[in-house]
Amino acid sequence: MPYQYLLFEQKGKIGYISLNRPEKRNALSKGLLEELTDLLTDIGNEKAVDKRVNAVIVKGIGKIFSAGHDLKEVYESDPQELLQLFQTCYKTMQAIRDMPQPVIAQVHGIATAAGCQLVAACDLAVASEDALFGTPGVKIGLFCSTPAVFLSRNIGRKKAMEMLLTGDLMPARDALIYGLVNKVVPPGELESATEQMAATIAGYSASAVAVGKKAFYRQINMEDFEALNYASEVITLNSTTKDAREGIGAFIEKRQPKWVD
Amino acid sequence: MPYQYLLFEQKGKIGYISLNRPEKRNALSKGLLEELTDLLTDIGNEKAVDKRVNAVIVKGIGKIFSAGHDLKEVYESDPQELLQLFQTCYKTMQAIRDMPQPVIAQVHGIATAAGCQLVAACDLAVASEDALFGTPGVKIGLFCSTPAVFLSRNIGRKKAMEMLLTGDLMPARDALIYGLVNKVVPPGELESATEQMAATIAGYSASAVAVGKKAFYRQINMEDFEALNYASEVITLNSTTKDAREGIGAFIEKRQPKWVD
Amino acid sequence: MPYQYLLFEQKGKIGYISLNRPEKRNALSKGLLEELTDLLTDIGNEKAVDKRVNAVIVKGIGKIFSAGHDLKEVYESDPQELLQLFQTCYKTMQAIRDMPQPVIAQVHGIATAAGCQLVAACDLAVASEDALFGTPGVKIGLFCSTPAVFLSRNIGRKKAMEMLLTGDLMPARDALIYGLVNKVVPPGELESATEQMAATIAGYSASAVAVGKKAFYRQINMEDFEALNYASEVITLNSTTKDAREGIGAFIEKRQPKWVD
Repeated sequence: MPYQYLLFEQKGKIGYISLNRPEKRNALSKGLLEELTDLLTDIGNEKAVDKRVNAVIVKGIGKIFSAGHDLKEVYESDPQELLQLFQTCYKTMQAIRDMPQPVIAQVHGIATAAGCQLVAACDLAVASEDALFGTPGVKIGLFCSTPAVFLSRNIGRKKAMEMLLTGDLMPARDALIYGLVNKVVPPGELESATEQMAATIAGYSASAVAVGKKAFYRQINMEDFEALNYASEVITLNSTTKDAREGIGAFIEKRQPKWVD
Repeated sequence: MPYQYLLFEQKGKIGYISLNRPEKRNALSKGLLEELTDLLTDIGNEKAVDKRVNAVIVKGIGKIFSAGHDLKEVYESDPQELLQLFQTCYKTMQAIRDMPQPVIAQVHGIATAAGCQLVAACDLAVASEDALFGTPGVKIGLFCSTPAVFLSRNIGRKKAMEMLLTGDLMPARDALIYGLVNKVVPPGELESATEQMAATIAGYSASAVAVGKKAFYRQINMEDFEALNYASEVITLNSTTKDAREGIGAFIEKRQPKWVD
Repeated sequence: MPYQYLLFEQKGKIGYISLNRPEKRNALSKGLLEELTDLLTDIGNEKAVDKRVNAVIVKGIGKIFSAGHDLKEVYESDPQELLQLFQTCYKTMQAIRDMPQPVIAQVHGIATAAGCQLVAACDLAVASEDALFGTPGVKIGLFCSTPAVFLSRNIGRKKAMEMLLTGDLMPARDALIYGLVNKVVPPGELESATEQMAATIAGYSASAVAVGKKAFYRQINMEDFEALNYASEVITLNSTTKDAREGIGAFIEKRQPKWVD
């Protein structure tokens, strides 16, 4: 384990990343973020793993998922250092976006500020019933402008503004209704429910999943029919892959597909 | 009836289009899509109909709404033919968007892959309580990249990603909460509920509805105040029409309006 | 009180604006909109107020919040005058957006057409359980194209289209689920619930809130990582303010912050 602030484990085609600074409420310090970016990038490039990982789970060790940046670090940084911290955080978000594997946040306890941003930036999220989400920066004079980006792209404007302007915590059930998380389960089922979602995805063609993830985020900012035109080209190309030929063939022949890509 | 794969019926100002390949689960084959585009375009241009249609319902004959493209056709197509298939599908979506009349999907049973895309691309949708929605292409190595476009513009990112990455079916009640459909009713009320929505719209000024539908989709991709500026010009022009004069006059005089446009 | 159509009151750091034309269902006439724009702008510029206002509540006197434009005025206007009316309304929406303070709509009774637009354009909204929202212009041949802009940016496309095309009223509980309002409370608690939300925000650093509100709306139309890059610069700059230094310091020292900006 070359990581100071993370744990990484692979079981089958699923990679498990644990934020491992429980004594610091899994604060997303510069050091942790750099490690996380490296690890995600390595997984994306099929390095540092035994064999290919098809889905990734990000979770937290200890009582909470993550309470965001390390405020002591923020307080002690000069503006240039702070910009570097936020750029480091930017790169982590970009690594999640750029890697071919879907990343699932497994959220228990608290996910606030940059911790909430991390959940919002993940492709999917599963939360424990008692999980709470928030962007409380406004309470300390530091508006959660960076968390606002993915938060406002997950939930509606009014709810995002409420979280950002009041700093109030959103319970898991609301996070589900408004679209910040995909599933809410009792605490005792959090691990298995997340793993099940990861296993479902990991059982599919990695190349099809990679094509789909990339295309999804590329098309989402396009005008509707520009997006549909682009997506038509993507799916046509996708259909020429060995896995698509195998998958459609297996469907027609009513048998299980065997992925090759 | 010049249509091989569709049924078309007009009652009053409502047009009813039925996907009519129940033995193929109403597969959206190239042939069916071409007919659908032609029919929608003709309705939009006031051709092939007795008199003007003010609202259109699209539904499926048989046990389900539609299971998407014809996978046998997809499997047997070379890449150029496939691109043509997806471009044909593109044109159907464009016909829905470009016609002045609102199009309502009436969904029972299953709406998956391009069938789910069709629901998402319609202006409105009513679903039976037992209806299921999904984008299961990932299960056969062919990620639903084209359905993703309108799906992700109807429901939030996280839920869209979940449907696309897991292939899991979404029940009607969730489709309602997340915004894929407008109304969910018991199976026995599906037809009447959809018809009632269509009749409400069909009773309004066709010119006002046409102006509104067009402006809605034009403004939706603009920056907020660019959109509001554009909409201000649209509503000003709208207000000079005979129907708006009549409608506002009737409102002030507390009588029923008589539409002329 | 220099206002003909409004009431303005300040208690502590909260400003209360009341639409005060109950006999006209608080119609958003040109005259009222001009006064409202002036008042919002003055509050934004710290004029016409005793001391700085940190949060603003907009509510209606009488039985309803607002039924939208004055249809008699609309009916009697020529196209140039109408365009001016809608441009006047545009300026009100822009004043809400441009002022540094969050604006909360406190909605009881009815908020329709431009009244619904006003709710949608506010940063936050609290509604009474019996409140109803609608865009019924289609019923009088004048499609609610301008209300459509912020409505479609608050709630999903399908629900927005349903309101616009049917003219049906949306009950408060649906407005909450779909994201048009932040909170729904019994009628007797409307005032206190809205005030409590305003008081929470008003207790925070005004400079941090102002930075956050501005950045939120600027980033929302950007591509994801362009937005995150922009937000990183905003939060870095924010962190150098006295209030952020004070707020973070107070947090670390486990004491209450004292805002200075």
